[in-house]
Amino acid sequence: MKRLSTLDASWLAVESEDTPMHVGTLQIFSLPPNAPDTFLRDMVARMKVDCDVAPPWNYKLANAGFLGRLLAPAWKVDKDIDLDYHVRHSALPRPGSERELGVLVSRLHSHPLDFSRPLWECHIIEGLENNRFGLYTKMHHSMIDGISGVRLMQRILSTNPDETNMMAPWSVKPVRGRKASGENAATLNWAFNEALHALKIQVDSTPKLVSALTRLVHSARHEEDHLTAPFVGPRSMLNGRVTGQRRFATQHYPLERLKQLAKYADASLNDIVLYLCGTALRRFLLEQGQLPDTSLTAGIPVNIRPADDHGTGTAISFMIASLATNEAGPLERLDAIRASTCSAKEHLQSLPRSALNQYTMLMMSPYILQLMTGLGGRMRPAFNVTISNVPGPEKPLYYEGAKLEAMYPVSLIAHGGALNITCLSYAGSLNFGYTGCRDTLPSMQRLAVYTGEALDELELILLSKKPGARKASKSGTARSKRGASAK
Amino acid sequence: MKRLSTLDASWLAVESEDTPMHVGTLQIFSLPPNAPDTFLRDMVARMKVDCDVAPPWNYKLANAGFLGRLLAPAWKVDKDIDLDYHVRHSALPRPGSERELGVLVSRLHSHPLDFSRPLWECHIIEGLENNRFGLYTKMHHSMIDGISGVRLMQRILSTNPDETNMMAPWSVKPVRGRKASGENAATLNWAFNEALHALKIQVDSTPKLVSALTRLVHSARHEEDHLTAPFVGPRSMLNGRVTGQRRFATQHYPLERLKQLAKYADASLNDIVLYLCGTALRRFLLEQGQLPDTSLTAGIPVNIRPADDHGTGTAISFMIASLATNEAGPLERLDAIRASTCSAKEHLQSLPRSALNQYTMLMMSPYILQLMTGLGGRMRPAFNVTISNVPGPEKPLYYEGAKLEAMYPVSLIAHGGALNITCLSYAGSLNFGYTGCRDTLPSMQRLAVYTGEALDELELILLSKKPGARKASKSGTARSKRGASAK
Repeated sequence: MKRLSTLDASWLAVESEDTPMHVGTLQIFSLPPNAPDTFLRDMVARMKVDCDVAPPWNYKLANAGFLGRLLAPAWKVDKDIDLDYHVRHSALPRPGSERELGVLVSRLHSHPLDFSRPLWECHIIEGLENNRFGLYTKMHHSMIDGISGVRLMQRILSTNPDETNMMAPWSVKPVRGRKASGENAATLNWAFNEALHALKIQVDSTPKLVSALTRLVHSARHEEDHLTAPFVGPRSMLNGRVTGQRRFATQHYPLERLKQLAKYADASLNDIVLYLCGTALRRFLLEQGQLPDTSLTAGIPVNIRPADDHGTGTAISFMIASLATNEAGPLERLDAIRASTCSAKEHLQSLPRSALNQYTMLMMSPYILQLMTGLGGRMRPAFNVTISNVPGPEKPLYYEGAKLEAMYPVSLIAHGGALNITCLSYAGSLNFGYTGCRDTLPSMQRLAVYTGEALDELELILLSKKPGARKASKSGTARSKRGASAK
Repeated sequence: MKRLSTLDASWLAVESEDTPMHVGTLQIFSLPPNAPDTFLRDMVARMKVDCDVAPPWNYKLANAGFLGRLLAPAWKVDKDIDLDYHVRHSALPRPGSERELGVLVSRLHSHPLDFSRPLWECHIIEGLENNRFGLYTKMHHSMIDGISGVRLMQRILSTNPDETNMMAPWSVKPVRGRKASGENAATLNWAFNEALHALKIQVDSTPKLVSALTRLVHSARHEEDHLTAPFVGPRSMLNGRVTGQRRFATQHYPLERLKQLAKYADASLNDIVLYLCGTALRRFLLEQGQLPDTSLTAGIPVNIRPADDHGTGTAISFMIASLATNEAGPLERLDAIRASTCSAKEHLQSLPRSALNQYTMLMMSPYILQLMTGLGGRMRPAFNVTISNVPGPEKPLYYEGAKLEAMYPVSLIAHGGALNITCLSYAGSLNFGYTGCRDTLPSMQRLAVYTGEALDELELILLSKKPGARKASKSGTARSKRGASAK
C-alpha cells in the first residue's frame, strides 16, 4: 500500500458526477504500408496477451468506496487485472472523419472510470478515414497529470518504423534517474507540491490557505502597465457550474507556419497561440450574444527562470494574460496580448524563487480550493480559461510500424472553468486539443474551426501589410532580419 | 410534475455504482436491398431532426441530485432535449460478428445513465456483418419495465417493408385505451403495484412487509410433491454481491424446433427453455468447480388464471421451479423440471385472486426488499436465477424497409442475483438475452454457447429414443397423436 500525496488525493476528493477527474491522450496513427486487414485486431490481441502490467497501470485504490477513497486514499497493486476490460477495441461509423472521431472521444471521455479497478482505459479506434486509427488513453488525475500522461504514452513509441513486437504501453517499466525527475519537474503536479511545501501548508487546512491566498493576491497586484492580475477576468459562460458530459475537438497546424507568423508579428509562438484562441473565443461568444465587455483572461503554465537563479535551472509557474477579446481589430488584439504576456513574464522573472513558488501556488490553488470548498463556478474566476502549450517529441515516432501522425491532450475541466485548451508540438506540427463542458458550451467544436479561420485571417493581414515578407522570408537575409527584430 | 409510484421510485432508490437500474432492448435489422452507403447516417439524421419527443421519452427527474431523487422523486417534461446526446451512432470493429456486438452492448449497458437528462439512450450500431445493423435502446427501470420497453420499441415498427419516413421511437405517442391497459396488466410493474395494494402496505413500511412476507412464506409452503418453495435454492456464485460492469450474450433458435422437442418430450415450451438454461448452467458451474449439491431454482414470471376467476381474465404471478442442475442425466433433468413446473402451476392455479396477488408479492418483493435493506447477496436467495419467457410479435416487422431479424431484452441484475435470462419470441424464432455481472460471472458468454449445445444434445437423445418421431410428425395422424399425449 502506498498513500497518495495530498495533491493526488485531492483529485479523488473532487471527483463527482459533474466533474470526473481523469485526463486523456488521443494519438492518431497511419496504418503501415500494406498492413493486413487484421492489423488492428492482431495488435489488440498482442497488447492483451502481454500481461506484465507495470506501475502506475497496475495500481488500484485500496478502498474503492466513496468514503474510503476520500478518507484513506492509498494505492495497492492489482495482481489480477482484467485487460479485456481496460483495453477496448472500438470503431467509428462511416465516413470515419475527424468529426466522428471527436464525437466518440467526447463520449468516452465523459464516462467516469470504474473506481474498483486500476484507474485507466485504453481504446483502439478503427475506421478513421485515410487508413488511420486512433488510440485514446484515459487515466485518473490522481495517478498522473495530463502532461506526464502524454509523455507516458509517447515513451512506448520508437523512431524506427521497422520495429515490431513492441511492448504494450502498460508493460513499459517507469524510467528512473535524472531524466525522469527532470521530466517531473516540468509538470504542474510537481510544481504544486513544491509550492505547497514552500508555503508549509496543507490543502486541507483551508482557513490558513485562504489567508495566504488573500495576502498573495494583493502582493501580486503590482501597478505595472499591462499586468493582468488574477480575479480580474469577467464572469462569462466559461465560468459557471459545469455538468458531467464533455465535448472534445482538435485542430492542428504546421509549426513552421505559426513560427513564421510570430516572426512577422514580432511576437512569440505562444502569443500567436493565445491570439488564435482569443480570436476564436471572441467570435464564439459574440455568436452566443455572450461576449463580456472586458477581456477574457487566460491562465498559462510557463517555464521561467527565477530572479535569484543564475544557473540553468527553471521553475514551472503560471502566468495570467489578457486574450484581448474586447478588441475588435485583429492587430490591436495581437498587440494587446503581446503587451500582456510581456508584462506577465517580466513580473514572474522579477520574483525570487520562493516568491515565484508562492505565486505559482496562488495561481493554481484557487482551482483546487474552489473545487474543494464548492465555490467553483459561484465566485469570480481567477482566470477565464486555461491554455497550455507543451513541447512534445520532435522526431516522427512509430508503433508497430504505424506512424504517429498527431497527438492531442484531452484534459479535465471543473466548476468555474468549462474550457481547457492544450497544445502539444510534435514532429513539426502544433496540435490543439479543446476539452469543454457539453451543456454549458454548446457547439464548442466551432472553436476549433474558428481557430483555423483566425490563422488564415492573421496570415492574410500580416502578409498584405508586409508585401515583401513572404518572398523575403525564403531568403536567409530576410529571415535573419525578421529573427533579429523578434523578441 | 408527476410523482413517481412507490415501485417506480424504488428503482431510483436502489440505483448505485454497482447496480445501475436500467433495462435495454437490442434489435438486429438487415439493411434493405440496395440500401445506399449512407442509409444509416441518413436514418440517424432523420431520427434527430424529428424533435417532437413524446412521453415517457421527454420525462426527466425534477430533482436530479442523489438526495432529490431519493426523497422527492418526480418527473417533469424536458422541453429542451439534446437529441445529439441521446441518439448515438456507433460502429463495430471488424469482422463485426455477434461477438463484437456482444462486447459493445455489454459496455454500453454498463454505463450509468445521466440523471440530469431524460433517462434513456438509443445507439444505432453499424458494421454488423452480413449487411445488418443493431439498435440498442436503454431506459431507466423507474420509467419503464423491461417488457414494456421491448413493446415500446416494437410499436414503431411496421409489417409493411415498403413503408418509409417512419417516426423515431421517441416521437410515437403512447397508446391509450383498453389495449394499452391490457398490455400493462401483463407487466411485472403493474402486478407489483396491484399486489402492494392488495396487501395494503407500502414498500417503505419495512417491518410490516417483513412480517407479511414471513407469514406468506409459510402459508405458501404446501407439502406437495415437487413444489419448489422460495428460499430453498442453494447459495451459489450467482447469488453474491455484484459489481458495476455487465456482460451480455445472445442465442436464438427457430421456435418450431423447440416446439417439436416439447411435443416429443411431452413437456411445455417453457419446460424446454428451462431445461436448456438449467443444462447450460450445470455445465458452466461444473467447469468453475462451483456446482451446488442441490438444484438451482429459477424465478419465472407467468400468466395464470386465478381459481376464483371463471371468465377470461388472467393475472401475472411468479412461479419458482427447479432447474434440476443436480441431475446428471439429461432426461432425468428434463423430467424433474417438468414435474416441478407442473406442481408450481397447479399450486398457483389453486389460489384465489387475493392470495395469488399476495403470493406474487411474496415472490417479487424479496428482490426489492433485499435491495432496499442491503441484504441482497448476503442472505439465502429467494431463487437463484430469473428466467422470463415473453411472447413477442408473430409477424416480421420493418423499420424504414430494414427487416427486424431478432430482438433481445437486455435486463438488469442486482445484489443476490447476478444473472438474468429473458427469452422473447418473434416471427417464428425464440431469442435468448443473457445479462450477467462481469466480475462475478467470468466468461458468462459461454452460457449462450452451452444453451445451443444443450439443444443439440436433447434433440439427438429424443430423436434417437423415438426413431419414428421425426418422420411421423410430418403426417397429420402422428402429429395429433403426439398432441394428444402432451399435457
